[in-house]
Amino acid sequence: MDTPSPTPLFDQVNNPDDLKKIPREQLTALCAELRRVILDTVSITGGHLGSGMGVVELTVALHYVFDFADDRLVWDVGHQCYPHKLLTERKERFHTLRQKGGLSGFSNKWESNYDAYLMGHAGTAASAALGIAMGDRMQGRQRHAVAVVGDAAMGCGVAFEALNHAGSLEHERLLVILNDNRWSIAKTVGALSRYLNKLRAGPFYQRAKDTMHALIQSIPLVGKDLDQRLGDAVDMLKNMVSPGHLFEALGFRYFGPVDGHDVGQVLEALESIKKLDGVVLLHVLTEKGKGVPGSEDRYDRAHAAKPQPVKKKAEKVPVEPCVLQPVVPLQKPGRTWTEWFGDGLRTLAKKDPRLIAITAAMPDGTGLMEFRDEFPERFVDAGIAEQHAVALASGLATSGMRPVCAIYSTFLQRGYDQVFQEVILQRLPVVFAMDRAGLVGEDGATHNGLYDIAYLRCMPGLVLMAPKDGVELHEMLAFSLTLDTPSGIRYPRGNAPAPNELLGWHGRHQPLQLGRMEVLREGQDGAVLAYGHMVQTALEAAALLDKRGVHIEVVNARFCKPLDEQGVLALCDRHDRVVTLEDHVRVGGFGSAVLECLAANGPVRAQVQVMGVPDEILDHMSRHQILEHCGLTAAHVAERFLVGRDASVSR
Amino acid sequence: MDTPSPTPLFDQVNNPDDLKKIPREQLTALCAELRRVILDTVSITGGHLGSGMGVVELTVALHYVFDFADDRLVWDVGHQCYPHKLLTERKERFHTLRQKGGLSGFSNKWESNYDAYLMGHAGTAASAALGIAMGDRMQGRQRHAVAVVGDAAMGCGVAFEALNHAGSLEHERLLVILNDNRWSIAKTVGALSRYLNKLRAGPFYQRAKDTMHALIQSIPLVGKDLDQRLGDAVDMLKNMVSPGHLFEALGFRYFGPVDGHDVGQVLEALESIKKLDGVVLLHVLTEKGKGVPGSEDRYDRAHAAKPQPVKKKAEKVPVEPCVLQPVVPLQKPGRTWTEWFGDGLRTLAKKDPRLIAITAAMPDGTGLMEFRDEFPERFVDAGIAEQHAVALASGLATSGMRPVCAIYSTFLQRGYDQVFQEVILQRLPVVFAMDRAGLVGEDGATHNGLYDIAYLRCMPGLVLMAPKDGVELHEMLAFSLTLDTPSGIRYPRGNAPAPNELLGWHGRHQPLQLGRMEVLREGQDGAVLAYGHMVQTALEAAALLDKRGVHIEVVNARFCKPLDEQGVLALCDRHDRVVTLEDHVRVGGFGSAVLECLAANGPVRAQVQVMGVPDEILDHMSRHQILEHCGLTAAHVAERFLVGRDASVSR
Repeated sequence: MDTPSPTPLFDQVNNPDDLKKIPREQLTALCAELRRVILDTVSITGGHLGSGMGVVELTVALHYVFDFADDRLVWDVGHQCYPHKLLTERKERFHTLRQKGGLSGFSNKWESNYDAYLMGHAGTAASAALGIAMGDRMQGRQRHAVAVVGDAAMGCGVAFEALNHAGSLEHERLLVILNDNRWSIAKTVGALSRYLNKLRAGPFYQRAKDTMHALIQSIPLVGKDLDQRLGDAVDMLKNMVSPGHLFEALGFRYFGPVDGHDVGQVLEALESIKKLDGVVLLHVLTEKGKGVPGSEDRYDRAHAAKPQPVKKKAEKVPVEPCVLQPVVPLQKPGRTWTEWFGDGLRTLAKKDPRLIAITAAMPDGTGLMEFRDEFPERFVDAGIAEQHAVALASGLATSGMRPVCAIYSTFLQRGYDQVFQEVILQRLPVVFAMDRAGLVGEDGATHNGLYDIAYLRCMPGLVLMAPKDGVELHEMLAFSLTLDTPSGIRYPRGNAPAPNELLGWHGRHQPLQLGRMEVLREGQDGAVLAYGHMVQTALEAAALLDKRGVHIEVVNARFCKPLDEQGVLALCDRHDRVVTLEDHVRVGGFGSAVLECLAANGPVRAQVQVMGVPDEILDHMSRHQILEHCGLTAAHVAERFLVGRDASVSR
Repeated sequence: MDTPSPTPLFDQVNNPDDLKKIPREQLTALCAELRRVILDTVSITGGHLGSGMGVVELTVALHYVFDFADDRLVWDVGHQCYPHKLLTERKERFHTLRQKGGLSGFSNKWESNYDAYLMGHAGTAASAALGIAMGDRMQGRQRHAVAVVGDAAMGCGVAFEALNHAGSLEHERLLVILNDNRWSIAKTVGALSRYLNKLRAGPFYQRAKDTMHALIQSIPLVGKDLDQRLGDAVDMLKNMVSPGHLFEALGFRYFGPVDGHDVGQVLEALESIKKLDGVVLLHVLTEKGKGVPGSEDRYDRAHAAKPQPVKKKAEKVPVEPCVLQPVVPLQKPGRTWTEWFGDGLRTLAKKDPRLIAITAAMPDGTGLMEFRDEFPERFVDAGIAEQHAVALASGLATSGMRPVCAIYSTFLQRGYDQVFQEVILQRLPVVFAMDRAGLVGEDGATHNGLYDIAYLRCMPGLVLMAPKDGVELHEMLAFSLTLDTPSGIRYPRGNAPAPNELLGWHGRHQPLQLGRMEVLREGQDGAVLAYGHMVQTALEAAALLDKRGVHIEVVNARFCKPLDEQGVLALCDRHDRVVTLEDHVRVGGFGSAVLECLAANGPVRAQVQVMGVPDEILDHMSRHQILEHCGLTAAHVAERFLVGRDASVSR
């Protein structure tokens, strides 16, 4: 006899049309099934768990009320979209999440027509949905545009810009759903968050409004007189007593707050709002990580899960009773670059009372949790607000502090103009610690840090560095604090080697000097000039080549700007072939700096080849797979020195 | 007998200490003198007139109440700082405004200790001032930090991020002055602006508040009962009736609005606020261009003045009775690139109903005024909100429209991350029309558009172009609308040649082809490969060289990405010497694209030199002076082909 399916309702649902056939009163049960499926799958595949678990009811209600085969739904950030994927013809592939060739971890317009938009950085959903609404109206298309924005993303400047614009328009129809879970990856910061907390006490406000009505109606003695005396003022008062006046001041009609885990309540709200014209904000209260065991008071724990070691190939999601265990621990053995950074910064902060650390809503991801605990006075979480974080750092440096902005390479793009005007033009000694610089793997194209060398190197007076190992990262941090100019240090995701772990290098460590490279090993058959962590790859390539009787020089560039021009010229005169190596696009990166130096300083002996990430949009895959795809493994490097020789190096 | 000075009070004031000796009741008269001096000087030197004229009283009051030799004052944008410069030891140099070696047109920390900060792009003053306040507190320094922010700049996302952060802090002391003149360069847009208009009706709100009080006190029959029934709700109501609740929702204490042209009223407000702790917003109502004749209803006319033709050297400001004439007309003879763009776009919009033009608060500067009038439905002014403007364009493109974002090269930096995620990663056909790309001259370092090739070229799938003349700009616009990928077109400030005005080129125009260069003239003594408007300079250099018997080939690159790789390789094999030429920094620009192509495709015959803007922070000077300074004149180009020959070319 077959055992009954643990997900009888979900088994009937492959797409929103199926969903609409489920009776309303069974939707709560369906939500429980969805939550179970997500939890079981993500605990195997890894992924961003918390956001999706928090929006199960909201997602069900949205698909129940709207028709997103035609209506447009923009998730901000895409993290939230796991239940959405399950309901939109992707349940069979859900176990392939974030794997090469599998489903993306974010919403992805190439993956499904139900994904209107691709999103990985926070805050732009309202802008995008407004653009879609505006374009649809202009083209005479009748459909709805909905943006689901987290409360932390609502604190992004660009989200404010979008509300400010949308609220002033006469003809657009837009629904912004504020998914208020009080958490970004860390706890949401800022005054807006405090304001939303007040709104959470919704019934109180409702009561005040009712009381006001009662007041006016219940005073017959003065009622008529009152009307005249108060005039418009009473209307105004009534309006202002409604909750959400901040949003109403921006021209939105505010509804809520509604309990985001009461699917019926959300349904009713959406059904009413669907009939309205204009721009509307619906405030939905949710719990990040709802249903993730152990996450009740620590939603950051529920943000993402690393994949569990695969015991068997999960071809079909094993739908078993919900596994009651905490999310798998996040740390692999060894020390990550992030940890080296955090430790180094704390050591420096002990010596230098001017040092202050700034994060944009990523205290954990940037390795600053211990710093925050040890130096709470010198730790700033600016929220998902990289523009402000950088400008704030500029102000701090202006007053004599030594700010270190720990922002992922990809997110620093958000604060680019502030890097320019606030820091570079003012020649202020702000340090940019760019974690996740290079290929990041599973998070995919939105999170790759592949452009920072190009976008920073073009600007004057910035010192740019990248360390080969954890100790050198410490040295560069210390060095950057001695500079009176801005500086940037880039380092990747993953584990950092200690110096003695660098393959085949047993030389003496050379102290850092501004704009000076470091020769790690000599060789007469060519040279690799590597930037940052790719030094490891270069040393591995050299070891592979040693076995073939080919001996190359390996140089640690250390500085991309100022470049060691004398060193580069001498290197390129010592060899016939020099390969530059970096974890950055080949366009405008470290290799281009070398080529510019050579063009400016006349001909050299060597033919120089630039190895880096190709100029294309990369899909999500593991970091190992992507290095292979990009031709950036040690074997690939070694092959460059075997051209014209007998065979290729086996990988 | 000497005639009495027309500025007897101002004559006594060289710095804020002198100002404080002027009796309070004479400050109004001093303001009138200041306004006259500014108007008379700027009508000769040119410069940003309107902002400064609007803040005369505010500036006087600020310096009267605070001590900005120690206290810190951050102007957002620096445009506002002309009266500030006059009061802070720069009156004797005021007539050198925006000239080489003279005063900067913005606040500039290297110019005076009274300028706490450098600022050219809007919106970051509150962030910077907060950083300064925070750093000062940490270092035990007791002083005030004040940011003066325009109402349009308050709509910048980064300004919202700063308020959101500041309002949540317990220990910081910060005064943000909202200088509400209802204008950016264009009329301020957005819901915030509408909200501020409501606040402008301040007395009404005050009346409402009074009425509420009266109401509660005047109903003895129910008064006591009422108190109990209303409870907290009444307190809440009272709080919510105060004006500025939007700012109070963000954690600020709001004061105002005060009449910014009543110096006594502003003084009193500042004196009260100075005693307060915490974060405070003072709302000051001003008129942009106050006192500029003819600007009463068109403040955009008063934004900036071009210099008048110099009749005599203005060694000392001629202080004569205020010249009652309108600001000098802005157009020089000939057609600007901006005008070519505007005309071209209108022509295309007639044919293509999907075309929509987007500006970020610069309809005039980007040449879209006529477009706005002709196609009001397809024109969007997103406010000083480049992030949103780009994300909105992405949404519009998603819905099938063809958005053209007309944003200055330097301001597109503000929307960089949106270019990446919203447009490039989604492969959406958004067109970026980058005006003011290259050296802009008098506006100086903050406004130079020197980095766009580098910061855009590194990203995948973007088509980047630059036209040699006005007709080619039209062609590139039309071409970009045929693409299904994002594209960018850069063109500079100033006049664009018509094709027949290009020196020495009488060849047949070759139609645009994706990634194909155009040979304009042949020659066997070397080649210049020029990008964009620098083609003119290359043709002039070729003409200079013709006279010396040296005949060079001149090539119009047209595309920076995709680069014409075959064309570049062939060119570099035809010649011994190839010079690339661009109005962009030499780091990561067009020349680097050529070098990367050559490195990737093996050795060529030519030695390639990259000519472009040097990697340094450039002071403000005229465009002619700065091209000379950067070595980017035709004579400089010609000299590259005379090395080893007899003499240099006279410039």
